[in-house]
Order: sequence, then C-alpha cells, then structure tokens
Amino acid sequence: MRVLGVDPGLTRCGVGVVEGTAGRPLRMLGVGVVRTPAEADTAERLVLVERGIEEWLDEHRPEYVAVERVFSQHNVRTVMGTAQASAVAMLCAARRGLPVALHTPSEVKAAVTGSGRADKAQVGSMVTRLLRLDAPPKPADAADALALAICHIWRAPATGRLQQAVAAHRRTTAPVRLPKGTR
Amino acid sequence: MRVLGVDPGLTRCGVGVVEGTAGRPLRMLGVGVVRTPAEADTAERLVLVERGIEEWLDEHRPEYVAVERVFSQHNVRTVMGTAQASAVAMLCAARRGLPVALHTPSEVKAAVTGSGRADKAQVGSMVTRLLRLDAPPKPADAADALALAICHIWRAPATGRLQQAVAAHRRTTAPVRLPKGTR
Repeated sequence: MRVLGVDPGLTRCGVGVVEGTAGRPLRMLGVGVVRTPAEADTAERLVLVERGIEEWLDEHRPEYVAVERVFSQHNVRTVMGTAQASAVAMLCAARRGLPVALHTPSEVKAAVTGSGRADKAQVGSMVTRLLRLDAPPKPADAADALALAICHIWRAPATGRLQQAVAAHRRTTAPVRLPKGTR
Repeated sequence: MRVLGVDPGLTRCGVGVVEGTAGRPLRMLGVGVVRTPAEADTAERLVLVERGIEEWLDEHRPEYVAVERVFSQHNVRTVMGTAQASAVAMLCAARRGLPVALHTPSEVKAAVTGSGRADKAQVGSMVTRLLRLDAPPKPADAADALALAICHIWRAPATGRLQQAVAAHRRTTAPVRLPKGTR
C-alpha cells in the first residue's frame, strides 16, 4: 500500500510518502514540507496548504492518507493552526475518495520506536533506519510525516481485521460504530 | 456590500447572507444551516461542509465572508470541530479571492445588541428586528450567522478607515502589522 503521511501545521506541514506492507521492507517515495508565510492571513495560508497537499496527492497518488490526530491540550494558538491545517489535509483526501486515518502522536511513536514516549531524535533515527536513508529527514515535521505513514502501514492489518469483524457483526446484529480513527 | 456570515460547526454550520451599508436598513438575502451527520468520519463531514458553503457562495455571490473567530477555551471536542469547519469556510472564500474577516463572539454581540455579553435570545431578537423578519431565525446558529454578517457590515467603515491609515503610515515608515481579523 502507498500512504501519504501528513504532520499538519500552518507554518510547516510535514508530508511523506511510504510504500510497503507490514512485515516487509518499506520504501520512501518522497518527503517534504509545505510551508506558508506567518505574515499571511490564515485564510490565505489554508489555500497554500491545500495547494501543497494537492500537489503531493497528484504526484504520488497514495491509496491512503494518515494524518496526525490533533489534541487541544497544547498551546492555544498553535493548536488552532494545527487543527485548521489538518482539516484541509483531511478534506483534500476525502474529496478524492481516499480513506483518511488519524493516528495519535503516541500511537505513531509506539509503532515506530516501540515507546509511546520516544523523543523527536529517536523517531527520526528509527525512520532513517526503517527507510534506509542516509540521514534523518529534516525538519522534524518531515520525519514525523514519514513515521505517520509507516505507522499506518503497520497498523493496517489489525485495522483491516477489526473492520472485517465489525462488518461480520453488522450482518447479524444492529449497527455498530467503529472506533474513531478506523474506517 | 453583500456579506456571507458563517457560524462554523461540524454538526450545524450556520450561514446567512445580508446586504446593506452601515447606517442604512439591511436586507436578508438568505439564511440556513449546513448539517453533517454525527456518525460520519470527520473527513467526510468536512467534504459536506465544503459542498454546502460552495453552494451558498455560488447562489448568493457575496463580496465578503465573515467567520466567527474560534477560541479554544471551550469544550475540547467541540472546539476542534469548530476550528476544522471554520478552516473549510475560510478556505472556500479565500480560494475565490473573497476577503475573509474573523469576528469574535463578543464583537458580534456588541455590534448587534450593544452588549458583548448578550445571550442567544437577545441576539436572535435584535437580528429579527434589524432584518425585519417575522420571527427569530432558528436554530441559533442561523441567527448567529446573520449577526456575523451584520457585524461585518457595521464594522466595515471603521476597518476601512483603519486600513487607509495603516496604508498611509506604511508609505512613510516601516511595515506595520494589521490587527488580526482586519484586512
């Protein structure tokens, strides 16, 4: 499967495309950052984020988009920009009919490093090893986007089995709501 | 001037179009609510919000879009949906080159009722009088969207003078940043 990971942000929106399946070596197809100028209006910045994400979708044609789930316990100003940029990323994907998965930062860290409390350097270092890169991708937002894509590929079999179980359950009983973040 | 007011939300996104100029009677051109199903994925809901806003922009061709400025001191879950829906509204407007203005809830209440602490009923009642409606628009999100549009029309002359002053100042001195929400 080919996955676009998006680490959302208004100033720097990390994007990374990884191809592979769980249990086999992964391949990085691209990594980068969509930037918007801090002095621009929020509305203009959202248009630039949309344009950037669209270019990545056009160029790499991913089958899935994995976006970091935003929490609001962080800095108030930052979290609003992050929520708004993540909305644009989700919108771009869903408008094309691509499945969107949300993964929390600790899910991503745990998937990639084995610990939900790993720091940026550990995530960057594991992403570098897993994708056989020469050096950790910079800035950290780019490495985080790749980690999101890797997390999605590795979690997909479990999510797939869950969806099958829910679908089977649905055929015999009343409707069941999937947990958030699974599709 | 013709203004589309947007009271952003994922479950109910209030929309209202008002035409007029400060100091003269106002005219309501349309009011409604863009709804999305709570059981749908956030990404799908954002696509529905986009589609709804686009329809309102197509039908009423406003010259300005006024969106409620979202703060995050409210309920964590609610505020994320509100921030995401507001991002979609801002994106739709800016993509068309329409100026987007953000007004805080207290600015809107103060503009329409004279008090920044007015309750929903007072806002609905003043919107009804100002637009010479038979009854307050329902739900409250629809009335709030009209109040946003009215607030924008009434604040526009002051904002325009401010922008002229800043532009004049810029011609003679170093760059000045406009306060947030003015354009």
